[in-house]
Amino acid sequence: MTLDATLAQIDSSLDAALDRLAGLLRIPSISTDPAHAADCDAAADWLVADLQSLGARAQKRATPGRPMVVGHIDGPEAATGPHLLFYGHYDVQPVDPPDLWHTDPFAPEIQDTPHGKVIRARGASDDKGQLMTFVEACRAYKDVNGSLPCRITFFFEGEEESGSPSLIPFLRDNADELSADLALICDTSMVAPGVPSIASQLRGMLKDEFTIEGPAIDLHSGHYGGPALNPLREISRIIASFHDETGRVAVEGFYEGVHEVPDNLLRQWENCGFDEHEYLSSVGMTRPHGEAGYSTLVQQWARPTLEINGLWGGYQGAGTKTVIPSEAHCKLTCRLVGDMDPDALRARIRKHVEDRLSPDAKITWNQDLDGSPAAVMNTGRPEFEAARQALSDEWDREAVFTGMGGSIPVAGFFKDILGLDAMLIGFAQEDDAIHSPNEKYNVTSFHKGIRSWARVLDALAK
Amino acid sequence: MTLDATLAQIDSSLDAALDRLAGLLRIPSISTDPAHAADCDAAADWLVADLQSLGARAQKRATPGRPMVVGHIDGPEAATGPHLLFYGHYDVQPVDPPDLWHTDPFAPEIQDTPHGKVIRARGASDDKGQLMTFVEACRAYKDVNGSLPCRITFFFEGEEESGSPSLIPFLRDNADELSADLALICDTSMVAPGVPSIASQLRGMLKDEFTIEGPAIDLHSGHYGGPALNPLREISRIIASFHDETGRVAVEGFYEGVHEVPDNLLRQWENCGFDEHEYLSSVGMTRPHGEAGYSTLVQQWARPTLEINGLWGGYQGAGTKTVIPSEAHCKLTCRLVGDMDPDALRARIRKHVEDRLSPDAKITWNQDLDGSPAAVMNTGRPEFEAARQALSDEWDREAVFTGMGGSIPVAGFFKDILGLDAMLIGFAQEDDAIHSPNEKYNVTSFHKGIRSWARVLDALAK
Repeated sequence: MTLDATLAQIDSSLDAALDRLAGLLRIPSISTDPAHAADCDAAADWLVADLQSLGARAQKRATPGRPMVVGHIDGPEAATGPHLLFYGHYDVQPVDPPDLWHTDPFAPEIQDTPHGKVIRARGASDDKGQLMTFVEACRAYKDVNGSLPCRITFFFEGEEESGSPSLIPFLRDNADELSADLALICDTSMVAPGVPSIASQLRGMLKDEFTIEGPAIDLHSGHYGGPALNPLREISRIIASFHDETGRVAVEGFYEGVHEVPDNLLRQWENCGFDEHEYLSSVGMTRPHGEAGYSTLVQQWARPTLEINGLWGGYQGAGTKTVIPSEAHCKLTCRLVGDMDPDALRARIRKHVEDRLSPDAKITWNQDLDGSPAAVMNTGRPEFEAARQALSDEWDREAVFTGMGGSIPVAGFFKDILGLDAMLIGFAQEDDAIHSPNEKYNVTSFHKGIRSWARVLDALAK
Repeated sequence: MTLDATLAQIDSSLDAALDRLAGLLRIPSISTDPAHAADCDAAADWLVADLQSLGARAQKRATPGRPMVVGHIDGPEAATGPHLLFYGHYDVQPVDPPDLWHTDPFAPEIQDTPHGKVIRARGASDDKGQLMTFVEACRAYKDVNGSLPCRITFFFEGEEESGSPSLIPFLRDNADELSADLALICDTSMVAPGVPSIASQLRGMLKDEFTIEGPAIDLHSGHYGGPALNPLREISRIIASFHDETGRVAVEGFYEGVHEVPDNLLRQWENCGFDEHEYLSSVGMTRPHGEAGYSTLVQQWARPTLEINGLWGGYQGAGTKTVIPSEAHCKLTCRLVGDMDPDALRARIRKHVEDRLSPDAKITWNQDLDGSPAAVMNTGRPEFEAARQALSDEWDREAVFTGMGGSIPVAGFFKDILGLDAMLIGFAQEDDAIHSPNEKYNVTSFHKGIRSWARVLDALAK
């Protein structure tokens, strides 16, 4: 009953684990702010020392930006389990606006709340608390068993909150060292409180931006209203053409590569505890406004979108200016799913727009915006079923394969550069206020997160 | 041959008239800038003195803003002609940007150009040069004949370039003193060089502005793209619904009160020298974009418009922000013609928008924006035909009744408050650069403008 002993060890050493997490949380490792570069270094040093205390061969590795941390621990000689690569990030978001914090963001506190104990600090949830669930699971496992159940490579990044500029070069330069059988990532949420979740599909993203120019200069609407092409009307007409009246994107070929959600997954989602009414009403919506025929959860996790994020032209000041402006601007992003190809889609969207332009309208596209495909996890691998069972055992609730509306680019990079499938398991809650003031992590998330990883490690090793 | 003598006097005293105009142009009477309040006072004093030199009973009259100038000259005892009210404005636009002026804007210069001599200064055309054409015509007429041919009230405003805040109260408070048989206004252009023009219809204007609110707060497009109503898509769809594919406004009842241009007027316009190709190509257009079936001139002078002057929402900075914004904003103006009722039209436009709003979209209308109906001059009055003939004689070219794309609100106020028809005759050229750097007035406009008024006065007195 090795696992039981490990879980007992986790329970009895929780306070010590929380103390260690507090130590990491005290370091204000804000990666976007150059003034905190030394703090990022200190957080990396802290992690190197912590991994070394587990017996890992760990190093801080320089990059042109914030350092990476890489550590290796071999499993037992007779290990039969996979070689795992665990990823987390030690950098945190800025604390702005500081006035809205009720406590010092870098003086972590355990607080009682109506929903149980929380540890409150910047990074408590995103991602220091989450990454430490895995490290603490390894510590307990080793303490009880003398070694880990399989070979593990730890890989911690310090630039996740600032766009990961060093990540791709580092993965390319260290592909051999970082190769493994499966990546584990702990940077996601549970779909509902108490519902263990494996994020099995992440949407991709396509960014684009265009400017429509009509008249050569701003014109007086008394003289040119009518005869001159108004770019604001032109851009409105084009944006209105992007969707049909059912909310479906009307760009030809847009849905190529989109797959319907399999029935068995759909049934899991229907019962995963997601509260559609609460999700919508919390932002003032009485109903879902996306594609007709799809639930809010399916719209968010498994359907592509084309959304306008910025739109502007003409006069924005007080009162009236009788201008026919020369230009109008639109920023858009698409969320991609399945096998949608960002490059092909970009060409289709641009064609859709250009086909609809009036004579005398000139268009310019921003050439600097990128795209990334959706990532669909390889849930057919036996490790996914093993992890799902382990999580179900810990939480006494069937674990679900969830989607994610947002993007976690590192999963795609692991696949593309290292050829590595990723499994995303996280214990954050929707109300953790990540990126916001008063970020917290539930002590239950931390405690049962550690226990969850111990169970997953144990299951994967078999 | 009284008129011939008067015209000869105008020709022989042109240099003196230009000197007087230069005196007025030297006063930087910028009404929008409080720092120039004393200069506006000085310009009013200058005009009072100049009118007194004609024998007028003239006064500077205080308002809460810049002063008005009112002067009266009786005609001969046996005068049979109408009592005329002449309007002009002595205030000028700011000179910004000063760097683009090639000369001091308030040091008027006579310059030779490829198109003849011009007098260059701020206000040379708008409106000091224009108003002095009438004053100089009166001076010459009186010098030759001993008196004016009819009773004349001069009324000069000093706030035209800053929205005329004191005008309506002043007209109301002094309605008896300002009553007359016909108003003359010299603040308009000739439709083409050398084509004498009487502006017989001015478009009105309706201003409105709305904000559409969707989500209660800005949202992350990864989480809410799709399920949440995007106000940028909503506002684009609504703006796109304002016009049909022929460029006609699709708001129900929009064209109520619009009359087709009578054939005889249409024929005048077709032959008035307006160069559609030049007008459009100068701003980058290869064709007119307004209502199908109407020429550019008719679109500009005699058709109503609904134009978007400002449109904005979401992220406008560099790069991408994956936001579903909470709000989107639209500023619009309509140009009105014929008997279109601004209040009724405002209600129709608002209904059009509100009928098309999606569930969960909230709308707010700016309640502070006004409207004014179109002004159609009473060209059936015999004075119009008399003036047309007088202008045709002076310019050796059939004078035309033109429309105007813009608005001259004072004409409407004269009608509404004083019950006074107005006749708008002006000699400005499209290339006078009013409101722009290097404003000028052709010496020919000034000289033949004075002669024109002398002929018009003579004709009206008969």
